Amino acid sequence: MERVKLESIPLHAVHIQDSFWDKYIRLVKDVILPYQWDTLNDRVEGAQPSHCIKNFKIAAGEENGEFQGAVFQDTDVAKWLEAVAFTLASSGRDEKLEKLADETIALIGRAQCEDGYLNTYYTIQEPDRRWTNLKEGHELYTAGHMIEAAVAYYQATGKKEFLEIVSRFADVICEKFGPKEGQCHGYPGHPEVELALVKLYRVTKEKKYLDTAKFFIDARGQGGNYFEEEERGEKYKQIFPEFAGYQPEYSQSHLPVREQKTAEGHAVRAVYLYSAMADLAYEYQDKELEKACETLWNNMVQKRMYITGGIGSSGLLERFTTDYDLPNDRNYSESCASIGLAMFGKRMGDMTRDASYADIVEQALYNTVLAGIAMDGKSFFYVNPLEVWPDNCLERTSLEHVKPVRQKWFGVACCPPNIARTLASLGQYVYGKDEEALYIHLYVSNETEVKMKGRLYKVKMDSHYLTDGTVKILAERMNTAEEKTENRIGGKIALRIPGYMKKFRIYRNGEKLENPVIQKGYLLLENLGNREEITLKFEMKARFVRANPKVRADEGRVAVMRGPLVYCLEEADNGSNLSSGYIDTQTEPEEVYEPNLLGGIVSVKLKGKCISMKGWEDGSLYGERKPVFEDTVWKAVPYCNWGNRKTGEMAVWIKELIKN
Amino acid sequence: MERVKLESIPLHAVHIQDSFWDKYIRLVKDVILPYQWDTLNDRVEGAQPSHCIKNFKIAAGEENGEFQGAVFQDTDVAKWLEAVAFTLASSGRDEKLEKLADETIALIGRAQCEDGYLNTYYTIQEPDRRWTNLKEGHELYTAGHMIEAAVAYYQATGKKEFLEIVSRFADVICEKFGPKEGQCHGYPGHPEVELALVKLYRVTKEKKYLDTAKFFIDARGQGGNYFEEEERGEKYKQIFPEFAGYQPEYSQSHLPVREQKTAEGHAVRAVYLYSAMADLAYEYQDKELEKACETLWNNMVQKRMYITGGIGSSGLLERFTTDYDLPNDRNYSESCASIGLAMFGKRMGDMTRDASYADIVEQALYNTVLAGIAMDGKSFFYVNPLEVWPDNCLERTSLEHVKPVRQKWFGVACCPPNIARTLASLGQYVYGKDEEALYIHLYVSNETEVKMKGRLYKVKMDSHYLTDGTVKILAERMNTAEEKTENRIGGKIALRIPGYMKKFRIYRNGEKLENPVIQKGYLLLENLGNREEITLKFEMKARFVRANPKVRADEGRVAVMRGPLVYCLEEADNGSNLSSGYIDTQTEPEEVYEPNLLGGIVSVKLKGKCISMKGWEDGSLYGERKPVFEDTVWKAVPYCNWGNRKTGEMAVWIKELIKN
Repeated sequence: MERVKLESIPLHAVHIQDSFWDKYIRLVKDVILPYQWDTLNDRVEGAQPSHCIKNFKIAAGEENGEFQGAVFQDTDVAKWLEAVAFTLASSGRDEKLEKLADETIALIGRAQCEDGYLNTYYTIQEPDRRWTNLKEGHELYTAGHMIEAAVAYYQATGKKEFLEIVSRFADVICEKFGPKEGQCHGYPGHPEVELALVKLYRVTKEKKYLDTAKFFIDARGQGGNYFEEEERGEKYKQIFPEFAGYQPEYSQSHLPVREQKTAEGHAVRAVYLYSAMADLAYEYQDKELEKACETLWNNMVQKRMYITGGIGSSGLLERFTTDYDLPNDRNYSESCASIGLAMFGKRMGDMTRDASYADIVEQALYNTVLAGIAMDGKSFFYVNPLEVWPDNCLERTSLEHVKPVRQKWFGVACCPPNIARTLASLGQYVYGKDEEALYIHLYVSNETEVKMKGRLYKVKMDSHYLTDGTVKILAERMNTAEEKTENRIGGKIALRIPGYMKKFRIYRNGEKLENPVIQKGYLLLENLGNREEITLKFEMKARFVRANPKVRADEGRVAVMRGPLVYCLEEADNGSNLSSGYIDTQTEPEEVYEPNLLGGIVSVKLKGKCISMKGWEDGSLYGERKPVFEDTVWKAVPYCNWGNRKTGEMAVWIKELIKN
Repeated sequence: MERVKLESIPLHAVHIQDSFWDKYIRLVKDVILPYQWDTLNDRVEGAQPSHCIKNFKIAAGEENGEFQGAVFQDTDVAKWLEAVAFTLASSGRDEKLEKLADETIALIGRAQCEDGYLNTYYTIQEPDRRWTNLKEGHELYTAGHMIEAAVAYYQATGKKEFLEIVSRFADVICEKFGPKEGQCHGYPGHPEVELALVKLYRVTKEKKYLDTAKFFIDARGQGGNYFEEEERGEKYKQIFPEFAGYQPEYSQSHLPVREQKTAEGHAVRAVYLYSAMADLAYEYQDKELEKACETLWNNMVQKRMYITGGIGSSGLLERFTTDYDLPNDRNYSESCASIGLAMFGKRMGDMTRDASYADIVEQALYNTVLAGIAMDGKSFFYVNPLEVWPDNCLERTSLEHVKPVRQKWFGVACCPPNIARTLASLGQYVYGKDEEALYIHLYVSNETEVKMKGRLYKVKMDSHYLTDGTVKILAERMNTAEEKTENRIGGKIALRIPGYMKKFRIYRNGEKLENPVIQKGYLLLENLGNREEITLKFEMKARFVRANPKVRADEGRVAVMRGPLVYCLEEADNGSNLSSGYIDTQTEPEEVYEPNLLGGIVSVKLKGKCISMKGWEDGSLYGERKPVFEDTVWKAVPYCNWGNRKTGEMAVWIKELIKN
């Protein structure tokens, strides 16, 4: 029997109005898109020129000059357009913004080569070297972002120009790459085009896009490594000196994807690849591929993921290392990698209807992804450590990748636009649906419309999930007069009960449901009537979380979570030297809603101790004196909000006071 | 009043016969020197060819070919010769070894240019680029090692050929560099020649060598940075791509040395520089320079030094970072840096007669330096972490510099020959002397002869310092019949009482001395008679040491030391997952002499607990379950012996059980 996956509700139909998320989502349109537009046009003072729009003008023959920027510079325009598209869909059409986008799309069209090829770096700088360095050239990666943007723009506006541009390019790719004789049997050095081709197939129904995506997935890691092979090509030219010593694991090309059991290499590459694998596992109903996805997912989330939903333990090469290796102060945990983790998790959840995937999606979104952006939207973390001591985050040292302060947007930037597009498309993570059921994954206040068993409902979710744990959902039938349905039994609502939730109550139309059945993490309400009022009362309480003792970095330590939010200590609240801290987990945390702190948060006070400087006044470095402890009350704030006050220390995992 | 520093007793007069040290010293002659000779001659199978001797033959016009190896490849020959020299001096002349050395020296002579210049890289490969890249070219560094070797060989054998070769080269350097017009005002990118020129001055009495050393020290960091200046030279050519982004701190050229307050940059460069500064402070009785040495020393040992005497917290660039930044698992702590720390400490101790310097020298030698070499002498650590989990020491990650297993000697190697020369010249660290007193810095069994107040003594030290803490010293006058002295009062023996020593007893000729006076760490025995029998009974007991709470990495942790030896836990004794361990510091450590373990060591058993895997059988990564503890007895062994059994985890700093 063919399995049917959950579909997203179109972004334009999900109207988010949520006190927690709105402040971030608003930044996309108000701050990020205008700022990025200026950077794309080299108008930001002090910032390295992006040269991005200029490259397109040069490629279009409208300006003179050299290509400037990274080989994947075009993706900055693509990501901007995708975020614009999501914003137009989710926040409503905007004439001025749409005009800018239309003009940019027209420029992209003019920069496209006659044969359909589209990439300003190769067009301007290396016209004879197309497709000769898949490992480093990022042509397919860039193509992928263009395609994603075009699909989003089409879905937001109904306009077809951009879609036609990228379809022509996709046709070039489908002709160039494939298993046939005469075709190139290579695959992207940075996965991305695969999931983009699936998206393009889904809007165009053009099967060859799907087949080429499948080809890329199937070819990867087969036989001799393609990237070693292409180096022997006549026109091969190395691009990045730091790629010397390249290992195929870096791009997940060390083994056929179906044989990969552990998440390896560059974390963003990995999760983009896995997302496409999940798409294809569904499209081809490929159980073997789905199993590979499950194995890789499990390895990641059960052995290689930070409590914040961060992945990629090594600063060097932004990569996975080994099981349980989760150092807190030197990790990479790129914001983009957590976005990719959410993308992968969403696909797996849609396919399997198992809420454990949404648990991880939520963990990544509410912690690492949000931590990636400053609360004013003007600066970003690429690297998301769980412990920071600003003094040792020095350039030209082993910690040079760790920044204690968010960075302004750079000429070349992946994380900021990636965060922007994720925020602008948050709606896709809130719901899933099929013919008869609405799945609620995230408790984010919004209004939407959805058809279940042919009956159209207006659904309004009023969520106080992060504050007092109360969520009210009102589903009311619309058009009952006109609508006819042959179904005698009504639709269903599936409510995700998070894996970490210990207690909750649920009321359906005022009546408490006793011992509701939860399957794969979803509580199913069946046979919906014309008006359903559902109230969930989750026990929203700070809790102490510990890591598997195989995680050496966290042994003897404890983290504080509240709902999906990981908490941390900051110097702003606790003074410096957070490593001196111990938490007494036998005392109750005290939760305080602080409306004026960090935009309104619940802070958590924790009793404990700290190691005193007493006895060390002589400044000696080592000595036999016994440690002196002082009683302390530690104050924790959500990790996603860290670094929004003065620069200082931060720590997630705190030593636990052991009582004997 | 001119201050007089302590002098070393010539190596040939110190006959070490010590159960702890002999096994290492023996390796130099038996294993290291023959092995290195083979590598220098490209005869070691599987090892990258050194090409070192071949380079000299090519430079001498006796063979054809290209230069191969690093720009400083010549230093491998120099370091081998220096270690040979120390070995001939300390272990007795050896005809075969001396013949090899003489032939090599003759070859070096033939490779020397007519004008006295000596460097095979520049002679063969870049004859027109002499002295055009002091930052990276290592010409002065290489010169320094040649000079050091020649001085040592002269002192060991009385043969002058090598000394004459390097003196001719030193003359070239003294002419080229200096403050005068027409001279180059640059200074070495890697300090080393400065201390070498002081050594050369001390044997030749040629003042210009000293003056040029002083010039290099004084010029360093003055005005505009010389290394930036030379890049604008016509013949400048970059050598190391990784030097892009060079910061003057890397080579301690960011400020005039007298204004430097903190130990910065590449740790080996730093301590070689400081050693020369200490030499010159003494030679010129330069109080200001001495003060700078003291300031830098104090910064290092009070804020930037591991308990093992390791320095250099960053793997990237093998450099210092910031005060109290002493991570245990990702540090560099190069073996050579600790050797340089000992060199610097010895010079400061000789000058100030303050035993606190010897405390650090001892700490570096007995821990990091010895850990640098395998007990079979066949493999070496360059990097000396204080905590190792072999699983995460992966290539192409942030921890790629950390090796859980010692490495075989490489084609280019600094640490192995540096350790070899240190072991072969250990005698210099044992004693210091002046006209009237013998200073005993290290309790290493040996016999020597020394004159005090004109009276010649045979001194025999029988040390069981590391086992039961007993040291017997017998000083007997020789030649009493022939010797005449006008001194009516006899000489003195100064015994170092280590700063960490809490209790000891001392007997002079069978009589216990009550409340002996200790000045600057030395206990002075005056007016020596013809026969003095001194017995020291140190309380040699394992002790718990803690770090200043500003050392974030060590907070809540404890290390075990016994005498100068730092202890560690190894997987071989304790199983894996050492991070699960807690030590109960309120119970007494149990010390056991184990004659069959690691060549005979005292192991220390420590009561404590470990975090159990109980409750985590489901393999989850995070959870709320409370930690389960199990009683455990941990076994610690000396850090210097770690990694001599099967590959496994190691840890110095262990969590301390806090009792409330």
